[in-house]
Amino acid sequence: MIALDANDADAGAAVVVEGARRAGAAVTLFGPAAEIVDPPGEVVDAPVAIGGDEEPARAVRSKPDASIVQAARAVGGGHAEALVSAGATGAVLAASLFHIKRLRGVSRPAIAVLLPVPGHPTLLLDAGANVEVRPEHLVQFALIGAAFMRAVHGVERPRVGLLSVGEEAAKGTPDVVEAHARLAAVEAGDMDFAGNVEGDTVTAGAVDVVVTDGFTGNVALKVMEGAAKTVVGAVRGAIRSSPLAAVGGLLVRGRLGGLRRELDPNTTGGAVLLGLRRPVVIAHGGSSADGIANAVRLARRMLDERAVERTAAALSDAGALRSAGSASVARS
Amino acid sequence: MIALDANDADAGAAVVVEGARRAGAAVTLFGPAAEIVDPPGEVVDAPVAIGGDEEPARAVRSKPDASIVQAARAVGGGHAEALVSAGATGAVLAASLFHIKRLRGVSRPAIAVLLPVPGHPTLLLDAGANVEVRPEHLVQFALIGAAFMRAVHGVERPRVGLLSVGEEAAKGTPDVVEAHARLAAVEAGDMDFAGNVEGDTVTAGAVDVVVTDGFTGNVALKVMEGAAKTVVGAVRGAIRSSPLAAVGGLLVRGRLGGLRRELDPNTTGGAVLLGLRRPVVIAHGGSSADGIANAVRLARRMLDERAVERTAAALSDAGALRSAGSASVARS
Repeated sequence: MIALDANDADAGAAVVVEGARRAGAAVTLFGPAAEIVDPPGEVVDAPVAIGGDEEPARAVRSKPDASIVQAARAVGGGHAEALVSAGATGAVLAASLFHIKRLRGVSRPAIAVLLPVPGHPTLLLDAGANVEVRPEHLVQFALIGAAFMRAVHGVERPRVGLLSVGEEAAKGTPDVVEAHARLAAVEAGDMDFAGNVEGDTVTAGAVDVVVTDGFTGNVALKVMEGAAKTVVGAVRGAIRSSPLAAVGGLLVRGRLGGLRRELDPNTTGGAVLLGLRRPVVIAHGGSSADGIANAVRLARRMLDERAVERTAAALSDAGALRSAGSASVARS
Repeated sequence: MIALDANDADAGAAVVVEGARRAGAAVTLFGPAAEIVDPPGEVVDAPVAIGGDEEPARAVRSKPDASIVQAARAVGGGHAEALVSAGATGAVLAASLFHIKRLRGVSRPAIAVLLPVPGHPTLLLDAGANVEVRPEHLVQFALIGAAFMRAVHGVERPRVGLLSVGEEAAKGTPDVVEAHARLAAVEAGDMDFAGNVEGDTVTAGAVDVVVTDGFTGNVALKVMEGAAKTVVGAVRGAIRSSPLAAVGGLLVRGRLGGLRRELDPNTTGGAVLLGLRRPVVIAHGGSSADGIANAVRLARRMLDERAVERTAAALSDAGALRSAGSASVARS
C-alpha cells in the first residue's frame, strides 16, 4: 500500500484523489478529509500543509501533523510501503530522511529525474538533494542510478556517464577527476561506466544514467527544461508569424503534440528519491491527475520490481557501502 | 589591427581568409603562407598548428612558432591590438595568458559566451576557463561581464544574475552564497545585481549577464546547445513523419530557418576571453567564413568601444581589483 500525500499538489486534493483512482493501486490518502470525496482508499485526515517557502527541515520538525510528515511516518513505521507526494522537494526530502531513513551504507540519498530525451529516457542524479558531494558519493549515485534503471526500466547493463567539461579522465574539478578514477575501478558487471560525458552528450541520449553533484545537476535539469521550452515557444512563434506558416502549423500540429507529450513532465511520474529504505516519488507540484497517477504507478513498479532491495544488493556487491569504510577513509 | 589565426579553423585557411575579407577590418593573418591566396592583409607564415588533443599550456610552451602563439605574441608585443582564433579554446586561453596577460587586478580571466536566447542575447561567464573559483572571482566575473554588455551591446545598466539552485540568497554552495552576499554589497551604479537565477530563468532571457564557475557554466552551455538541437531535431522528425505534416513543414520552413539562424553559433562571433589586456575572440572551430567575419567584427567593436579600458575602470570603481587586497584577504 502506498502513502499518498493529497495535500500538496497545486491543483488541490481532488486532482490527487482522481490521480489515485486512475492509478488503480492501493493507497492511503493523507490530506484534508473534508475535501476528499469518494476516495479510492483509506483517508487519514491531515489538513496541515508545508509551503514551498518554509525551511524544509524546520517545517518538518515543527509540523508533525503535516500531511507529508504523517505520510512519511506511515512508511517509516511499516504501515505503508512507499511514499508519493507532489509537495515541495525540500519538504519531501526532509520528511523522508527523518522518517523513512537512508538505506544502510548510503551516505547521501539523491534526487533522480528521468530526462525526457526523445526515444532514450535518461536518468539524471543528483538533481538537487546535495549541493556539494565527495567522490565516494558520486560513485554511490552511479550504482544507485544503474540499479534503478535495471529494476524499473529493464535496462540490462545501464551505461553510466559522469558529467564533466570534457571526455578525458583528467577533465573537471579535482572531485570529478577522483570520482572518475574510482568509477573506472568499480567492478560491477551490471553497470557499464562510460567515462565522462558533456552536457550535449546527455541530451543526445548517449547514456542511461548521468551522475553529478546536486548543484550542477539542478542547474543542468532546469537549463534543459528552459531551453526546450524556449525552442518550442520560438517554433510556435515562428509558425504563428505568417498566415502561410500558420496553415503549415495546423498540418504539423498532431505530430508536434506527440513530441509535447514526450517532453511533458507529467508522463515520467516525477522525481524519485534514491538511497532510502522505501521508494519515494515526488510528483511535479503542477501535476495533473494523470501526472499523479503516473507517480503512483512508478512507486508501485519500484515495489513490484524490488528496486530498493536490488539497489542495496548492487551497492554491497560493488563494495560501495559506506560501512565498508574504504571509500571515506581513503579520502581523509 | 587584429591578429587573426588562419591556421586552426576546421574548414582550413581559405575560409578564414574569406572571413577576414568579409569583415573588412584591418588584419594580419598568421597561418600557412602557401595556402593563403590573395590575403586582405599582411601574412606571417606560421604553418605549425596546435591540435585540440594537445595539453594546452605544454603545447603553447613547446611550439613557440605555432600560429596561435605567434599571433598572441604579436598582440602582447603591441604589434596588433586584438586576437581572433578558431583554435582549441584551451590553446587560445593558454597563449593569451602567457603573451597578452591578465588585466591588472584581475585574478582569473573568464570565457564569456553570448547565449542565443531569442530576442534577448545573454552573456554567460565563466563558460569553462576555471573549473573552480572563489567568491571574489565570481564578483569580478559579474563586473567584467556587465562592462562587456555595456560597451559592446549598449545595455546601459546590465542585469546580472548569479546562477544557483534557487532564488533565495541562501541557496547554493557556500561559495555561491558568499558571492551573493558580496555582489549585493557591490556599489556599482552601472550594474544591476538581480540576485540568484535558476537554469530556466537564464533561457527565458530574464537577465543580461549570468555569472557562474567554469564547470557549471560549461555544463550549462553544452546542455543548452544540446537541448536546443534535440528539440529542433525532434520537431524536424515530427514534421517528416507523415506526408500531411511534411506539407505543413514546407510551409513553415522559412520561418524555422530564421529561428535556426538566430540559434546558430556563427552569428554571435564566438566566445570572448574577458579579463585580459586586449580583446581575444575565440570563433567556433567549425566556423564558416561568416562566422570568422563576425568574430573579427566583434574584436573590432571591442576595440572601437574601448571595452578593455572600460572593464578596468568598472573593476576599479567597484573596488574589486585584486590589488585592492580586501577581497582575497577576507577569505583566508
